[in-house]
Amino acid sequence: MKINGIWQHSIVVNADSTITVLDQRNLPHQLTFHRIARWQDAAMAIKEMVVRGAPLIGAVGAYGLAMALQDGEELESTLQALLRTRPTAVNLAWALNRVHQAVRHLPAAQQASHAWHTANTIAQEDIAINSMIGDNGLEILKTFHMKQPEKPIQILTHCNAGWLATLDWGTALAPIYKAFDAGIPVHVWVDETRPRLQGANLTCWELAQHGVPHTLITDNTGGHLMQRGMVDICVVGADRVTRNGDACNKIGTYLKALAANAHNVPFYIDGKRAGYSY
Amino acid sequence: MKINGIWQHSIVVNADSTITVLDQRNLPHQLTFHRIARWQDAAMAIKEMVVRGAPLIGAVGAYGLAMALQDGEELESTLQALLRTRPTAVNLAWALNRVHQAVRHLPAAQQASHAWHTANTIAQEDIAINSMIGDNGLEILKTFHMKQPEKPIQILTHCNAGWLATLDWGTALAPIYKAFDAGIPVHVWVDETRPRLQGANLTCWELAQHGVPHTLITDNTGGHLMQRGMVDICVVGADRVTRNGDACNKIGTYLKALAANAHNVPFYIDGKRAGYSY
Repeated sequence: MKINGIWQHSIVVNADSTITVLDQRNLPHQLTFHRIARWQDAAMAIKEMVVRGAPLIGAVGAYGLAMALQDGEELESTLQALLRTRPTAVNLAWALNRVHQAVRHLPAAQQASHAWHTANTIAQEDIAINSMIGDNGLEILKTFHMKQPEKPIQILTHCNAGWLATLDWGTALAPIYKAFDAGIPVHVWVDETRPRLQGANLTCWELAQHGVPHTLITDNTGGHLMQRGMVDICVVGADRVTRNGDACNKIGTYLKALAANAHNVPFYIDGKRAGYSY
Repeated sequence: MKINGIWQHSIVVNADSTITVLDQRNLPHQLTFHRIARWQDAAMAIKEMVVRGAPLIGAVGAYGLAMALQDGEELESTLQALLRTRPTAVNLAWALNRVHQAVRHLPAAQQASHAWHTANTIAQEDIAINSMIGDNGLEILKTFHMKQPEKPIQILTHCNAGWLATLDWGTALAPIYKAFDAGIPVHVWVDETRPRLQGANLTCWELAQHGVPHTLITDNTGGHLMQRGMVDICVVGADRVTRNGDACNKIGTYLKALAANAHNVPFYIDGKRAGYSY
């Protein structure tokens, strides 16, 4: 998505086998970049929340493991150290294990380049997957648009499941970006998302950078808005989704889901509608 | 209730026909007092939220009108000016109109002393009413205590409906103080209450001053706690209660009420149980 009008990804791979990420701790007040040159830098960036968002953490972890191999570090112990940096982000373990699987039977001399290749693949796949979430979600938003073509679609979101949490597009926000880019009027109610304020600091910032109309609200406000018919659809991300469709997400999501249920507001988790089986 | 171990009311009437209130804008960081000597001071204190909470605002307004009459101000115009300081607090209009009714047919020379008397009566009645809310609510809390005498009763509250909002005892918190003073183990989950943080700044402070065990939580947390069976009862205040039992209260109360309903947690508004007719 765009930063200062220029289309960018949240990870830039540099020619010297390092990566550059946005330092999300300083948003929205300062736009600063953070260079990751060694696996320890990647571990620190995840632990200290320079980067956050499960898909982004996964990719940064994968690049970190590639850097470790490049520097001749021992594979298994570095893998374990990186796994410990954020036990709750399922994508981290998934991405690290994928790199591990790809290289563990290779001769040492080939491991680093294959690890880099795998990390790049993870990053590229994330962009493609999120774009597809966006395309699928766009079809859903079009149905709302057709019902009320004159009025913006009122969308409520919690926390940040936008492009800052991923390599590009985001998950929950991908359909919103696709709709906005397609000229469909949208307006996003952004929960500030206590205790860490990812909605206020990150979601508002990235929507503003891309030009998407939005309003910051306290986490207490959504129920009142739904009661008054001011929300057409809720869209949030997820830390985990079980096979039967249950989802875990940032604290507070549940209160919004109960309110959506009470007022027949459709509630989507990363492009899937809650209450329906898949 | 207690401040620094000493039992106090939230308004102190001084010998020189002034009143002293706690400056609630500085809590919990500084305990400072604010002297109100003229009706303009009372108007400022309400407008600037030196005092807040409907019963306290009502009493301060009543004393303000008494001060105006003492200073020879014109009754009707001062009444109107004080009414405008906080249009949403129903107690303010009620208290001001009560003073107005009590004095408007009296000779000018007698108005000030009768207005002071009425303001004092309003203040004393508030203490008595809240104490009775406390006694009634105590009986309800005893039934919870009897079911699980070993464990503290887990009570969730939103915003501040404690003694800082009244002359003493509070409304929603009165039963909790009565239970605590009676030796019944209680623990209060205090919603921080965005956007103005009355829970974090005021409710936690007054509970701590009185020694009542409590934990500050973000407004997002209550749903999760109820889902996990960690809340026995919700108790909140109200800005207004309609004859059929509907209540208006601080933004966010509704989300907690929906969660309580979903998990069969009894929800009380100023001592009355939601969903029941009275």
